[in-house]
Amino acid sequence: VLPIAVDAMGGDRSPDEIVAGARQAAAAGIPVVLVGPADLESRLDIGDLPLIAASEIIAMDEDPAGGVRRKKDSTLVRAAEAVRDGRASAMISAGNTGATMASALLRMGRIKGVNRPAIATPIPVPGQLPTVLLDAGANAEVQPEWLVQFAQMGAVYARHRFGTPSPKVGLLSIGEEAGKGDSLRKEAFALLQDATGIDFVGNVEGRDITTGEVDVVVTDGFTGNVVLKSLEGAVRMIVKALLEAMTADGYREHAEALLPAFGPLYSTLDPDTYGGAVLLGVDGVCIISHGSSGALAMLNGIKVADEMVKGGLVDALRRAVQPSVADPQ
Amino acid sequence: VLPIAVDAMGGDRSPDEIVAGARQAAAAGIPVVLVGPADLESRLDIGDLPLIAASEIIAMDEDPAGGVRRKKDSTLVRAAEAVRDGRASAMISAGNTGATMASALLRMGRIKGVNRPAIATPIPVPGQLPTVLLDAGANAEVQPEWLVQFAQMGAVYARHRFGTPSPKVGLLSIGEEAGKGDSLRKEAFALLQDATGIDFVGNVEGRDITTGEVDVVVTDGFTGNVVLKSLEGAVRMIVKALLEAMTADGYREHAEALLPAFGPLYSTLDPDTYGGAVLLGVDGVCIISHGSSGALAMLNGIKVADEMVKGGLVDALRRAVQPSVADPQ
Repeated sequence: VLPIAVDAMGGDRSPDEIVAGARQAAAAGIPVVLVGPADLESRLDIGDLPLIAASEIIAMDEDPAGGVRRKKDSTLVRAAEAVRDGRASAMISAGNTGATMASALLRMGRIKGVNRPAIATPIPVPGQLPTVLLDAGANAEVQPEWLVQFAQMGAVYARHRFGTPSPKVGLLSIGEEAGKGDSLRKEAFALLQDATGIDFVGNVEGRDITTGEVDVVVTDGFTGNVVLKSLEGAVRMIVKALLEAMTADGYREHAEALLPAFGPLYSTLDPDTYGGAVLLGVDGVCIISHGSSGALAMLNGIKVADEMVKGGLVDALRRAVQPSVADPQ
Repeated sequence: VLPIAVDAMGGDRSPDEIVAGARQAAAAGIPVVLVGPADLESRLDIGDLPLIAASEIIAMDEDPAGGVRRKKDSTLVRAAEAVRDGRASAMISAGNTGATMASALLRMGRIKGVNRPAIATPIPVPGQLPTVLLDAGANAEVQPEWLVQFAQMGAVYARHRFGTPSPKVGLLSIGEEAGKGDSLRKEAFALLQDATGIDFVGNVEGRDITTGEVDVVVTDGFTGNVVLKSLEGAVRMIVKALLEAMTADGYREHAEALLPAFGPLYSTLDPDTYGGAVLLGVDGVCIISHGSSGALAMLNGIKVADEMVKGGLVDALRRAVQPSVADPQ
């Protein structure tokens, strides 16, 4: 079994938390290989994890395309090459999102027939399976046809990741009726109605992302990224305000008694629970973790990578966007 | 003093809750005039409120433009005409949002120089003043120049509504650097940097909407509407999940003890607290309330209308988008 390549130097809490998560994954029986500087083990205890040496790091705020072009010996580029060359089964990074995408795209290449890869992110829904939102930021501007592929890829991902047999797919718009939205949505709506292999339920609105009404919500990468960050911000804001209210004088005792009741909700809403987003459409499994990822987020992200490799996600995506010759479409 | 025209037939809870809110406003000393069917007082007690008769209703799900064109004696059209003709100082409706916009736009007209009116919505930020988000849905597709006017109008509104002396204005995008975003954002960024009368702080991300970092967040009506509804959905989802967790067996006593602590946060997050959005750029004050508005939301919306009329919002908007002759710009 091939190991999962972990970018040891990506993310705000690298390398310590990243390596800690990788070691926990290895202890849980998932083979991993770190990608980092040759002297990494002189800096922290990497246990008996193998290492692919890479002398450069693309910084969190560095220009992605330029970084990947200039830094050919960077951890991100080397991780993507390890997947391309069959030395790793998947890659994961909590580093520069744009550079992670660019590395994966340039080194692994696209799945044949895919116009553009898209970032799929699980959005938590308390008491239900998460909603898969894509594109969460790979493509600021899209063509209507790309949204159809996002829908096909998102449905495959929901099936592989959450076991949803026939995922319901909605097009994010500003009204439920077919004619609502901008010209991009109107064109995409017509194409989605005719698309094969998906259960398209029509337009959905922002509030439907967190109700569990649909399993997959399709949008352009600009809207998706703004919505994702708006939701993250809102959850953080509410949790912070709740904790402040609960820890005010006179309430602390009751607040402590209630904490166990809030535990499951808290972990449902915690992005670390999901281990990150996945870049769908590249020819390999690529997990994009949150920049703030700690060991738990990395452990969960590595588990997701492992599941997606074992479940044959990439081959399923290949079939979904590339109808077979027997298909009259 | 002119009364505020209240569409008695708009919203899911009309006419009872709408009329109740209007009566509360009148009792609080704000003159109001109902707009509704001539026999309204045979259906419910309207107290001593005056009535402008209108025989038609544009339904919540009716095509806005068609509804306004066909139903010339509808409550929405009559309310907008009352403002235009100087029989009312402002209009408010919890009915069909598109039809409210169309009525106001067609009957009151635009402020001279305004390209397109925009919907400005206050987004709650616990412990701080709300953030003004616009456009929250009036224009699914926009030009970069319109975003500059939205910024100017949003700043005027933040000043009038929340007393922010020099509102910080951010452009909603997918990265803080100037080059981030789609082509619309890139063009708008350059124009906003050169715009007069606003304190433009650059790009902001989705999470900044609920942190209080900026006072005004500018975007197109598609993105704004999706974000607004996503945030509304997320708040509702979290509050529901919290209440479920708190009312589980064994926790109820502590939950009840904590309720007073959550009260202020709950009312901060409750959209009814803000009374609705305002349509900026039409030649009159037009308040668009949530379709689910009850009496409290209507009372608060009427109060906002009254404040905006007394504070001279429309004249301030006129000055903001129409630089004086003395201004070399």
